[in-house]
Amino acid sequence: MDATLRIFSGSAHPELARAICRHVGIPLGRSYTHRFSNENLKVKIEENVREKDVFVVQPSCSPVSEGILELLILIDALKSASARRITAVMPYFPYVRSDKKDEPRISITARLMADLIRTAGADRVLTMDLHSPQVQGFFRIPADQLSAVPIICDHLGKRDLSNAVVVAPDAGEAKDAARVAKRLNVSLAVIDKRRFGDDERPRAISLVGDVRGKHAILIDDEIATAGTMVEAVEFVRAQGATKVTVAAVHPVLSGQAPDRLRRAEVDEYVFTDSIPIPKEKMNERITVLSVAQLLAEAIMRIHDGRSVSALFA
Amino acid sequence: MDATLRIFSGSAHPELARAICRHVGIPLGRSYTHRFSNENLKVKIEENVREKDVFVVQPSCSPVSEGILELLILIDALKSASARRITAVMPYFPYVRSDKKDEPRISITARLMADLIRTAGADRVLTMDLHSPQVQGFFRIPADQLSAVPIICDHLGKRDLSNAVVVAPDAGEAKDAARVAKRLNVSLAVIDKRRFGDDERPRAISLVGDVRGKHAILIDDEIATAGTMVEAVEFVRAQGATKVTVAAVHPVLSGQAPDRLRRAEVDEYVFTDSIPIPKEKMNERITVLSVAQLLAEAIMRIHDGRSVSALFA
Amino acid sequence: MDATLRIFSGSAHPELARAICRHVGIPLGRSYTHRFSNENLKVKIEENVREKDVFVVQPSCSPVSEGILELLILIDALKSASARRITAVMPYFPYVRSDKKDEPRISITARLMADLIRTAGADRVLTMDLHSPQVQGFFRIPADQLSAVPIICDHLGKRDLSNAVVVAPDAGEAKDAARVAKRLNVSLAVIDKRRFGDDERPRAISLVGDVRGKHAILIDDEIATAGTMVEAVEFVRAQGATKVTVAAVHPVLSGQAPDRLRRAEVDEYVFTDSIPIPKEKMNERITVLSVAQLLAEAIMRIHDGRSVSALFA
Amino acid sequence: MDATLRIFSGSAHPELARAICRHVGIPLGRSYTHRFSNENLKVKIEENVREKDVFVVQPSCSPVSEGILELLILIDALKSASARRITAVMPYFPYVRSDKKDEPRISITARLMADLIRTAGADRVLTMDLHSPQVQGFFRIPADQLSAVPIICDHLGKRDLSNAVVVAPDAGEAKDAARVAKRLNVSLAVIDKRRFGDDERPRAISLVGDVRGKHAILIDDEIATAGTMVEAVEFVRAQGATKVTVAAVHPVLSGQAPDRLRRAEVDEYVFTDSIPIPKEKMNERITVLSVAQLLAEAIMRIHDGRSVSALFA
Amino acid sequence: MDATLRIFSGSAHPELARAICRHVGIPLGRSYTHRFSNENLKVKIEENVREKDVFVVQPSCSPVSEGILELLILIDALKSASARRITAVMPYFPYVRSDKKDEPRISITARLMADLIRTAGADRVLTMDLHSPQVQGFFRIPADQLSAVPIICDHLGKRDLSNAVVVAPDAGEAKDAARVAKRLNVSLAVIDKRRFGDDERPRAISLVGDVRGKHAILIDDEIATAGTMVEAVEFVRAQGATKVTVAAVHPVLSGQAPDRLRRAEVDEYVFTDSIPIPKEKMNERITVLSVAQLLAEAIMRIHDGRSVSALFA
Amino acid sequence: MDATLRIFSGSAHPELARAICRHVGIPLGRSYTHRFSNENLKVKIEENVREKDVFVVQPSCSPVSEGILELLILIDALKSASARRITAVMPYFPYVRSDKKDEPRISITARLMADLIRTAGADRVLTMDLHSPQVQGFFRIPADQLSAVPIICDHLGKRDLSNAVVVAPDAGEAKDAARVAKRLNVSLAVIDKRRFGDDERPRAISLVGDVRGKHAILIDDEIATAGTMVEAVEFVRAQGATKVTVAAVHPVLSGQAPDRLRRAEVDEYVFTDSIPIPKEKMNERITVLSVAQLLAEAIMRIHDGRSVSALFA
Repeated sequence: MDATLRIFSGSAHPELARAICRHVGIPLGRSYTHRFSNENLKVKIEENVREKDVFVVQPSCSPVSEGILELLILIDALKSASARRITAVMPYFPYVRSDKKDEPRISITARLMADLIRTAGADRVLTMDLHSPQVQGFFRIPADQLSAVPIICDHLGKRDLSNAVVVAPDAGEAKDAARVAKRLNVSLAVIDKRRFGDDERPRAISLVGDVRGKHAILIDDEIATAGTMVEAVEFVRAQGATKVTVAAVHPVLSGQAPDRLRRAEVDEYVFTDSIPIPKEKMNERITVLSVAQLLAEAIMRIHDGRSVSALFA
Repeated sequence: MDATLRIFSGSAHPELARAICRHVGIPLGRSYTHRFSNENLKVKIEENVREKDVFVVQPSCSPVSEGILELLILIDALKSASARRITAVMPYFPYVRSDKKDEPRISITARLMADLIRTAGADRVLTMDLHSPQVQGFFRIPADQLSAVPIICDHLGKRDLSNAVVVAPDAGEAKDAARVAKRLNVSLAVIDKRRFGDDERPRAISLVGDVRGKHAILIDDEIATAGTMVEAVEFVRAQGATKVTVAAVHPVLSGQAPDRLRRAEVDEYVFTDSIPIPKEKMNERITVLSVAQLLAEAIMRIHDGRSVSALFA
Repeated sequence: MDATLRIFSGSAHPELARAICRHVGIPLGRSYTHRFSNENLKVKIEENVREKDVFVVQPSCSPVSEGILELLILIDALKSASARRITAVMPYFPYVRSDKKDEPRISITARLMADLIRTAGADRVLTMDLHSPQVQGFFRIPADQLSAVPIICDHLGKRDLSNAVVVAPDAGEAKDAARVAKRLNVSLAVIDKRRFGDDERPRAISLVGDVRGKHAILIDDEIATAGTMVEAVEFVRAQGATKVTVAAVHPVLSGQAPDRLRRAEVDEYVFTDSIPIPKEKMNERITVLSVAQLLAEAIMRIHDGRSVSALFA
Repeated sequence: MDATLRIFSGSAHPELARAICRHVGIPLGRSYTHRFSNENLKVKIEENVREKDVFVVQPSCSPVSEGILELLILIDALKSASARRITAVMPYFPYVRSDKKDEPRISITARLMADLIRTAGADRVLTMDLHSPQVQGFFRIPADQLSAVPIICDHLGKRDLSNAVVVAPDAGEAKDAARVAKRLNVSLAVIDKRRFGDDERPRAISLVGDVRGKHAILIDDEIATAGTMVEAVEFVRAQGATKVTVAAVHPVLSGQAPDRLRRAEVDEYVFTDSIPIPKEKMNERITVLSVAQLLAEAIMRIHDGRSVSALFA
Repeated sequence: MDATLRIFSGSAHPELARAICRHVGIPLGRSYTHRFSNENLKVKIEENVREKDVFVVQPSCSPVSEGILELLILIDALKSASARRITAVMPYFPYVRSDKKDEPRISITARLMADLIRTAGADRVLTMDLHSPQVQGFFRIPADQLSAVPIICDHLGKRDLSNAVVVAPDAGEAKDAARVAKRLNVSLAVIDKRRFGDDERPRAISLVGDVRGKHAILIDDEIATAGTMVEAVEFVRAQGATKVTVAAVHPVLSGQAPDRLRRAEVDEYVFTDSIPIPKEKMNERITVLSVAQLLAEAIMRIHDGRSVSALFA
Repeated sequence: MDATLRIFSGSAHPELARAICRHVGIPLGRSYTHRFSNENLKVKIEENVREKDVFVVQPSCSPVSEGILELLILIDALKSASARRITAVMPYFPYVRSDKKDEPRISITARLMADLIRTAGADRVLTMDLHSPQVQGFFRIPADQLSAVPIICDHLGKRDLSNAVVVAPDAGEAKDAARVAKRLNVSLAVIDKRRFGDDERPRAISLVGDVRGKHAILIDDEIATAGTMVEAVEFVRAQGATKVTVAAVHPVLSGQAPDRLRRAEVDEYVFTDSIPIPKEKMNERITVLSVAQLLAEAIMRIHDGRSVSALFA
């Protein structure tokens, strides 16, 4: 790498930032964030960044609001320190599911986030597995989107898949699930849920495809409260699945998710480290795959002006 | 209506604009577009619009590029003529399916359209049944989205639906189809297509639900070449559907669509006038429902500051 | 008030918002903020705000980062709901002391806050007693600054001031303290502190003026950790002050402040409700003066287009 | 040329783009534009352009509206593909004569075009022989203007000019014609036209200077319908000119122009390839001079940071 | 006029502002400009302008730079005082002849002026007789352009014009002169000048039309140093003109102009008060026509939303 | 220095620009400013600046308004000449004390200046010793602030300081004076002034600290009319100071300042050349220290991307 590449980390996920730096072969940029007793944050960049090509690693994770503000302040500090270019590296993008106005008088907050990041001074965004592809259109600055799905498939491919079926936990995930099924060369099934009343939650009513006596691989982009996913697990078990794997790129694991995951009849959970999983949320069936090398490779390509889409082949 | 409301039309769909004006109870604003032999357009506003609240009706339809440019020039002329507020009324939004970057190095053109309309000077947008709801996040100016689906359902509801089933022509339409099924209080079926090779087109492989001996109502947001829709018709016929209705908000009807619609075993086509259907593309089985009253109501509410979402109830 | 004025509140200080509404004579606007288990916020405006003149009350207080994000999302939701004008009412402005670059490579975060609020869609800001007057220059949208100092002086003026002296706790506050002294028609003293080494905290070394046998009124714009203020109290006590009043507009009261206030030899604390004081931080010597009427008056004047500066006379 | 220079072409004039590339010594960038049956355009860049210095060649010519939209989409695709700098190379600028508001409530469309090109993401513009020099002030991005007049003069200079006179077809062209006359070292004449009624077209009424027995060289920046030019030809023939040459930079040749040119008593037409002339519009008396080398030289100078104005000397 | 209209004046031309106010029937807004000994200007608005529709009268005149800065500061003060709309009324626009890049590496300063006025906070511009009509395209805010030519023609029409001829002092003014000739129903003549060397000034060489024994009316948009105009006067006198009138909208009268005007054989000078003429520059043959009523009428129409172009009929 | 660095000067302070160039080791960029008799300025850049890193030296000094406009035009000319980056080098920033809204309806003109400079096209600002540090937050482009105080201290340090005391001429300068006292390792005194009536000027009433028999060093950021400073000199003399030095970074020296300086009982004045001092304002007790080397060093560091804050150590 040439001398102008710098990678900084906010407080969200320094382990990931350091892993990226190891792959790139440079030390992590020196900076610190101090949180005063009045909850105000002070960010200081502790090395010269003039004319440097700077990447800031900060996925959205708990504490969410403070993490977003820290990123904005960090970008502002880098800008006023005359960095040549600032790329916000956000493997999990904040408010990514708040991407439409499905009720009157609400905010399309993912769009607001894109605007705030640009206002703070970011020149580019590097993100991963957005919930809907249209979100890329929310950015007025160039935005690259990576996918960790190939990493997950490589991992699953090491298992015996002769009896496997990929299951979409609901129809909205069918398209993504089909892509995974094709990549793994296994069959596909879709859980078809339906809402019967305005305030009822959707209920699984039928399964397109067959899971009886099979290894069901349930796949989603993120797992937040795990409610939907655990219902799907119970449903495929009831339908006769003999082995269950749950895979997701972003382990948000909020609310009751850790407990639900511990209790569910799942043989393996496959997540990535796009978001850090605190020890108290872990269990021994969770496998965490790293996206650090993928991000490192993308950062080097962006820095050098080489094709990033070549990474998707 | 108070004295400051004005409605203008570009060349795309003056019939719709006039129908809207009749519902609002004001005459259509006077303007003309001249097309010189060098294909340049000259737009002139022929009445005073200073401090007026102006709405410009221009859905995207053939000639598409010229229609977009005419709208931009019209907005620019109104702005420089000191209109107080300009709302682009675009029942069918241009490039609405170009809403994501599913290949490297392409344009998210729906986003570009939103930016161009704002640059020309529009203050608001009023549109209808966007292909994906995220597109609303592409606008930096307030954008209202209406839906003609209730109008279509009201029409269908006048038929005998005791034996009907709503069919989504592919999984991507399942969510919208389910909403229609619920509104009509009939059952739902989904055609599950799958792509087997990179360059093959998707092929219908199975049907979730049952259409045998039933009246299949196929529904989509738009019909362009009609290829997908006609395949779906053939499939439900093969599966034993005894009656077929095809409904769509936006009758783009490009390429071979008119021929395909004439040849397909469909009992009724239900479209709206969000886009004009030229005579040569019509056939006697097509019913065109007007969205003029809905647009007129929305325009009056925007003008008066009354709730537009109340229209959705 | 005419029918287009609306006042909404975020989660920061609904009591103040309601008090303002009472003075204005309108009900508080209906909205809610839901905090999901993944810490994402959902803000919904529950009444029509089209073409309304909307004021959103949200001083910066704990939880600080979440309060800022909630305000930004609230403004975005109001904007997309077509509010005619949105004024952010922030009696205590976030990061107001982060107003200069006194170290290399830090953020002027108060400026960033001003930019973020504008990006979210605010048209105006109404704030109160900024730490430095230059901060008003950070806004690209019109910003009105009120002062609660006259309210504090009116309260102090009800006491016997025949023996009183206003004391600036450090030289930086001398100008403001002098203004108070003049308004109360009493004498002034300034504590002159000096830093002897780079990492030492400033130490009080001398007192300009005389406090012996007097009622010392210490005044500052905000009290955060109360460290500086309590040192000043001890110093004037050591210099022979027989009675001590501490007055400040903004009771941030972070960290050890509540304990320090309880222990300090102060006869009365005079604060305003620009920031809410939670019960556990209160003590019986604290008097809280309300700024609700002042804010209500300013809001009505802004809404009506009457002079706000006339309030300062 | 260093490795970062890339030249792309829209559909308007690939021959010119290829000729420029030959002069520069690089291959034409790979991209394609697909026109769907719904008239929507899909532009795809088929090679990596990250951090490249990209030039896009697209003069305004038939189909005019589609050519403009294609350029905007092409620029947007290049921007989102992370090109370092994008220069729109538009030898003939769209709507260049729509540069003033000579009637109420019309658009200054050349200005709108400049704004749209910037919104799409262009960083610079390279254009040629604008109708009025003020148009350069419409751009908020740097814009270089070249002139093909020296190329035309070089060509004319190869003829015997001992008996030649440069004729301005109307007073508005007198300044430019005088410059040509001086460069060719021949005398000047001006046709003085006058409008007698509001709806009458201007009529030639007198000739300043003398053409009898001479070789009249009529010169203009563009020839659209050729109406004005052919009238001027008839007038100078009537005044006794024995030989007539017509020269213009931009051969728009719209409407009846091809027929008029075939019928007019002109010995030679001298045009450039700033706009392509389709075969059916050609005739054997037309000489087309190429501006490819001039554009290539300007592109290399812009890329290298060498003076472009030095080309004008 | 309704209660929200306000007219303010900078230091440039308070007489004109007061005359406009008399026609509108409102008092001049109260403000002052103080010039400190360090040449810094302090502008203070001395009355409430919240939600007012404010017009600021400031043509460009000596001291030019200070007048521009005063206008920018005045607009900024009005904006921060929450004026609802600010219109810069600039009968003579600064740097209006610096409208093109006719040499490399110069500024199109008229465009810069338009940008600065917008940055300061102006929402509209009202100007008069721009040197080239394209300058209107430099504004990104709505700009109305008036013309004082009808006022000048009305004045000239009171003289005996039976023997008059309108003379354009050079070819560039021919178009405007022709319009005047038509309006006065008299004949036209054009002075045809030609430059023989690069550093020589243009020299009059011939006259298109006839002035012998006639009353020559020379007309231009502005008179700066009067060099060109006085040369033209001498030329028409030499050609036999028996009476000479010189008319121009903008009496810049810089450098030697006052002397030249005193010495020239001109019977009457007709100017407007778009720019003030200081006493020492006046002479008894100058007639000053007021544009105050025209500006007042335009201001009232802009304020009321009535057509301004109707004024041109 | 590499080949892309260029330094230009406006008319304000060419001596400083040339001195900077000598330190950098490059010739001053060639440009000229012509002032026409109508007071319009024409700026022309006389060498190629494409892709160059350009610095423009122009402190604010008499004629102030013209100097500001010249800078704006110069920046615009450089931008349109395709300079890669333009840094406005303004050792004394215009209107730097107009940094707050301490009266209703005035302009925060320092903020306006920052906006105008950015609108003209500047990418960065390099300035020195701003009156209040918050002004740095007025810039939306990166702004570096240098300080000449170390240069002044180095000079003072060459004198015998055994008996010296640094005196702040009023409380507002106490903080800066304390920093100087610490750097020189001498004691501090503060003049405490107080305003007794609204229209009275502040009057010195007491002195914190002791000057009797000492060498009083009075320090301020700028000296404009010198009124405050001369009063302070008289006061310390009255208090028994035996020697007086006055130091200030910016010698504005407006109005009666030159006379006052000549008459005051001051042993030495220490200023910098951030602003030129015309001969008629000089006296033999004034020492002018050059900031050219400091500015040159900062320019080279900005150009090379090395730390500028390292200069402050």
